[in-house]
Amino acid sequence: MKRHDGRGPSDLRPIEVIHGFINRAEGSVFIKQGDTWVLCNVSVEEDVPPFLKDSGKGWITAEYSMLPRSTGVRMPREAGTGKVRGRTHEIQRLIGRSLRAVVDLERLCGRTLRVDCDVIQADGGTRTASVTGAYLAMTDAVRHLMKHGLIEEDPVLDTLAAVSVGLVDGEVLLDLDYEEDSRAEVDANFVITGSNRLVEVQGTGEAGPFSWERFHAMEKMAQAGVRAILRRVMADA
Amino acid sequence: MKRHDGRGPSDLRPIEVIHGFINRAEGSVFIKQGDTWVLCNVSVEEDVPPFLKDSGKGWITAEYSMLPRSTGVRMPREAGTGKVRGRTHEIQRLIGRSLRAVVDLERLCGRTLRVDCDVIQADGGTRTASVTGAYLAMTDAVRHLMKHGLIEEDPVLDTLAAVSVGLVDGEVLLDLDYEEDSRAEVDANFVITGSNRLVEVQGTGEAGPFSWERFHAMEKMAQAGVRAILRRVMADA
Amino acid sequence: MKRHDGRGPSDLRPIEVIHGFINRAEGSVFIKQGDTWVLCNVSVEEDVPPFLKDSGKGWITAEYSMLPRSTGVRMPREAGTGKVRGRTHEIQRLIGRSLRAVVDLERLCGRTLRVDCDVIQADGGTRTASVTGAYLAMTDAVRHLMKHGLIEEDPVLDTLAAVSVGLVDGEVLLDLDYEEDSRAEVDANFVITGSNRLVEVQGTGEAGPFSWERFHAMEKMAQAGVRAILRRVMADA
Amino acid sequence: MKRHDGRGPSDLRPIEVIHGFINRAEGSVFIKQGDTWVLCNVSVEEDVPPFLKDSGKGWITAEYSMLPRSTGVRMPREAGTGKVRGRTHEIQRLIGRSLRAVVDLERLCGRTLRVDCDVIQADGGTRTASVTGAYLAMTDAVRHLMKHGLIEEDPVLDTLAAVSVGLVDGEVLLDLDYEEDSRAEVDANFVITGSNRLVEVQGTGEAGPFSWERFHAMEKMAQAGVRAILRRVMADA
Amino acid sequence: MKRHDGRGPSDLRPIEVIHGFINRAEGSVFIKQGDTWVLCNVSVEEDVPPFLKDSGKGWITAEYSMLPRSTGVRMPREAGTGKVRGRTHEIQRLIGRSLRAVVDLERLCGRTLRVDCDVIQADGGTRTASVTGAYLAMTDAVRHLMKHGLIEEDPVLDTLAAVSVGLVDGEVLLDLDYEEDSRAEVDANFVITGSNRLVEVQGTGEAGPFSWERFHAMEKMAQAGVRAILRRVMADA
Amino acid sequence: MKRHDGRGPSDLRPIEVIHGFINRAEGSVFIKQGDTWVLCNVSVEEDVPPFLKDSGKGWITAEYSMLPRSTGVRMPREAGTGKVRGRTHEIQRLIGRSLRAVVDLERLCGRTLRVDCDVIQADGGTRTASVTGAYLAMTDAVRHLMKHGLIEEDPVLDTLAAVSVGLVDGEVLLDLDYEEDSRAEVDANFVITGSNRLVEVQGTGEAGPFSWERFHAMEKMAQAGVRAILRRVMADA
Repeated sequence: MKRHDGRGPSDLRPIEVIHGFINRAEGSVFIKQGDTWVLCNVSVEEDVPPFLKDSGKGWITAEYSMLPRSTGVRMPREAGTGKVRGRTHEIQRLIGRSLRAVVDLERLCGRTLRVDCDVIQADGGTRTASVTGAYLAMTDAVRHLMKHGLIEEDPVLDTLAAVSVGLVDGEVLLDLDYEEDSRAEVDANFVITGSNRLVEVQGTGEAGPFSWERFHAMEKMAQAGVRAILRRVMADA
Repeated sequence: MKRHDGRGPSDLRPIEVIHGFINRAEGSVFIKQGDTWVLCNVSVEEDVPPFLKDSGKGWITAEYSMLPRSTGVRMPREAGTGKVRGRTHEIQRLIGRSLRAVVDLERLCGRTLRVDCDVIQADGGTRTASVTGAYLAMTDAVRHLMKHGLIEEDPVLDTLAAVSVGLVDGEVLLDLDYEEDSRAEVDANFVITGSNRLVEVQGTGEAGPFSWERFHAMEKMAQAGVRAILRRVMADA
Repeated sequence: MKRHDGRGPSDLRPIEVIHGFINRAEGSVFIKQGDTWVLCNVSVEEDVPPFLKDSGKGWITAEYSMLPRSTGVRMPREAGTGKVRGRTHEIQRLIGRSLRAVVDLERLCGRTLRVDCDVIQADGGTRTASVTGAYLAMTDAVRHLMKHGLIEEDPVLDTLAAVSVGLVDGEVLLDLDYEEDSRAEVDANFVITGSNRLVEVQGTGEAGPFSWERFHAMEKMAQAGVRAILRRVMADA
Repeated sequence: MKRHDGRGPSDLRPIEVIHGFINRAEGSVFIKQGDTWVLCNVSVEEDVPPFLKDSGKGWITAEYSMLPRSTGVRMPREAGTGKVRGRTHEIQRLIGRSLRAVVDLERLCGRTLRVDCDVIQADGGTRTASVTGAYLAMTDAVRHLMKHGLIEEDPVLDTLAAVSVGLVDGEVLLDLDYEEDSRAEVDANFVITGSNRLVEVQGTGEAGPFSWERFHAMEKMAQAGVRAILRRVMADA
Repeated sequence: MKRHDGRGPSDLRPIEVIHGFINRAEGSVFIKQGDTWVLCNVSVEEDVPPFLKDSGKGWITAEYSMLPRSTGVRMPREAGTGKVRGRTHEIQRLIGRSLRAVVDLERLCGRTLRVDCDVIQADGGTRTASVTGAYLAMTDAVRHLMKHGLIEEDPVLDTLAAVSVGLVDGEVLLDLDYEEDSRAEVDANFVITGSNRLVEVQGTGEAGPFSWERFHAMEKMAQAGVRAILRRVMADA
Repeated sequence: MKRHDGRGPSDLRPIEVIHGFINRAEGSVFIKQGDTWVLCNVSVEEDVPPFLKDSGKGWITAEYSMLPRSTGVRMPREAGTGKVRGRTHEIQRLIGRSLRAVVDLERLCGRTLRVDCDVIQADGGTRTASVTGAYLAMTDAVRHLMKHGLIEEDPVLDTLAAVSVGLVDGEVLLDLDYEEDSRAEVDANFVITGSNRLVEVQGTGEAGPFSWERFHAMEKMAQAGVRAILRRVMADA
């Protein structure tokens, strides 16, 4: 079977990563996965949230937003309504948890890394591209801190990437674009480390329940997908 | 190993279900799972969201809230701040998706079932108890609609329950209470049907990545857990 | 004349009080007055509002909310709109003032008692049931503080209850339910102490002005009503 | 006993009323009661709230606000915080209810009278001055409607004024200013018609419960107070 | 050419200034420019914004609001919506900047002058009347501070007024009222000092671009206009 | 005199324009002016604001936002606070007015062009770069509409660009970057057409009043600056 853009079921879309996209942020990565483009900027803050005060530990947190016209139909800005959408909350919490899972927060010495993932163009998989891009921008920011002698030991313990897998027309597909995602029967996202350990898994039956067998096939495809992503993005990191 | 409340690793907490708790709602279920108590009320609305207008289909949606003193330390009300917390959004989206997965929306004939899950007392697992309680209240509301001849065919296609599984001190445990949940290394929630099919799965490494082997053990325990819950709650449904 | 539920003009609805309803709060009272059910939880906070800082005095404040489906027609949650309704403000201010009127705030030694009144089911008179229930929960919390030696002298100086009186079809009635309340010509609420002194009085001509004679008859019925409520609820306090 | 400004216990502050203060509003009254100054503007809207649609009835509603520096210490604007204070809600509901009590809404023929009470300077009793001023501005707006033939029968059935009475240093006083109000043991507000019938009564024990005897003395003084106010303000109406 | 109210092209509307309008504010000026009436109150705060902490400098800031019925058609209150309109922001920033331009902030010795401009009646030119009135109220507040020995040297370095100039029906007109403003092709506002130096200039082509020649004519008329305003308002300052 | 980046007083920063940056919007221009980068996307909406309903006219409106880390120090997102900053309002109103000044709204036939200007990187002059970029994106969107036969006559009547001019260290400079802008004594922005007519002018004395002579020198430099910008950006339009 051929997908509507010519890919095979387990093919990724082309990935391009531009490091240092803007020159103000301590880490700035522009990641393009097909027509899904996310700008991930990391800011270092010499402070931690209240619940970590005096713990000596650092923190990593993320915010996520889509430009109004990143989508086919323009979405109103959240600033105008004063309401952050539930989906936005879900995604920024996912990004933050994922990064913290591979970082030794003690080694950040009381600093917060604040990641801003802004979707410039959206064609499905913005949350997984954001996790991958955020990871890369975070490692750039950590490198910046180490180069300036602000932290001594590398706090990043493992590599990390995220990928979506879905069930479309009864077939398991990797890295869904918007057209596929919008008619998927099952939609799952996996965050997996370079050592093939799980960080996050989320699977949803959009069109009813699904079998464990299908889910295990999706797990396998996700592992291969993350391996392929990491091969590409870590080459020039 | 014995857990701090005497349970074995795969034991559920005692579950009690009171149907028809208040007499105003079309479905009203008070579910107690240990010290986690949730009141689930279903309201029938003769309308659907804009995106379903004129489709003939119905809709199911959920709202979730915790009473301020349901927790050990009182939480401020969301109404006071005007901000719905990200966690709240996440949970109410989960409840809505789960119920819709086992319902034939066509058969609701243009009606919305709006489920309110209000946590009266919280001791871990409020989101899974909410899904289970919401399912039961929804079936009561559907029965009410059928009894009054408002819908003809039963739209509920399968039974459903949710359960949490976690990794605590290196051991896989079922149905975590707050004490266990707060120090779990991995925290996962499963929504599974009576026919043992998956509806939702969410797993998070709270203390770093975890192995696929562990995750598969958690999957197994969740299947047994949901079977046990359904045996208990469907008896008097 | 018989009322629609068989009561005489000066009869109360049946009252049931469950102390210690949830086990997390320092005081927790579930009060049922007919089909009006309110859960009143009291939290002890080791702090006072800014205007009492360093005064040595304590404070008592209240919040009030109705579950969305406590009413016959579901009401939207205030958290969703970010607006606390005017009626809500009015009621929570009334509850706080009423409790403070019978408490020696000095004896709270710099603590705040925060009362949460959450209406589980509403059938008229939720504000008066909230005042009565809040009073009972507050005395439980005070007893808890005294038992643990945190305060020495009992700060509660008098007992207290509230009751509604209305003019319906030209007749003065005690303890209106929703059906009566919605067509009352005059609606009044009284908060009165065990020593028959006034704490709060609010009377409103819903269908035009009313005579002083009528109002004085309502005052008399309220005094008898509060005496009857206190006889019942103080028995098992 | 002499009060701090030389008044006797049952003396009003000087009252001045300027009709037609601004020329845009259908009714515009600037009322000065001592140093409490309120500008009351009435707007006629050719519409009613949703719950009156197609009923043929009209409606009267009010909004109340204080200029930031109307008080001795500047208050932040509510617009900046996006929160309308509870006290504001309480007062604007009181004003609306009071006016509706003396008006035959049928005769407004589907129109809304929207009253804006803006406190220019505050020295106690802003809510009672607002009710009195709003009544006067409303009658001006009604006269305007009748003059233009937009309504036929005068919908205003009675005159109306409001006054505060308090217990200060154990003595019952009429028309409290800010200095008296801030140390009153009991604070009560009465809205009374020209035919000496009650529209609204609110009494609060600020420093503990109070006796029925005291309250009845306050009721008497309020009746005399409203009579005196109406004599003054109706002279040039 | 005669304007609709009989003025010549370079004639101002009648200006009246009442100093000390309310007695609570350190500076209180009620300025009437035709039917545009603005109450400008200045509050002295013993504090500065965070960015000036420990600088020794003072600050001047302004808030602007229109009473709902200041306009021909009533506008909703911003407090109700929780949104401050963009136009409001623009104007209050303009007022603050204008005042700061003629004040030596060092001499305010760590105090903030907070100006509230509340439009009581609006007939065009509310922003320019606000600037002029705010300047006058500010100088009153400064005089108050000097009289009480709280500041030593007069921080006000120059006089100041603002005026609007517009292009209506192809003719340059001074001090537009609402009727003229609403059909102006170009609308410009100038804030100019007594020494004829520019503080602010804002010009907008409402009906398309305009020539530099026209703009230079408007500049000239504005200079004469401000001279005339200052002659009038400084006479009794 | 040489500026800190080597430019002469009347030199622009290098300008780069990428048309069709994203492929979803009807017009999409990424404009880089030195290190100030703005993405301008235009969405065509088949609707107009309420005040134009049934007029047959179209409308043009703009929104402006800065990515949180576009600046040297990260700014909080407006969506989080629910408040749109005053500066944001000012700028988006400026962009909308500027574009409307050179467009015949009748020819848009009841459509709205909604421009989103999102600042990716900020180094001074974001509002003027936004106006220029928005103009270019708008003409692309108009061309798109004409190509698809949705409008017949080109509604764009003139070309347009904006530029900043400032007084820094007593010298008039063109196209200020952030370093210059933050210490400018006078800051002015001009929007000027290709036919050298004024659309908008805004000048502010940041450090006190300034002379008319200086302002006239700034006017001249702005005219030359806009001519130079238009030469560059219209070449490849």
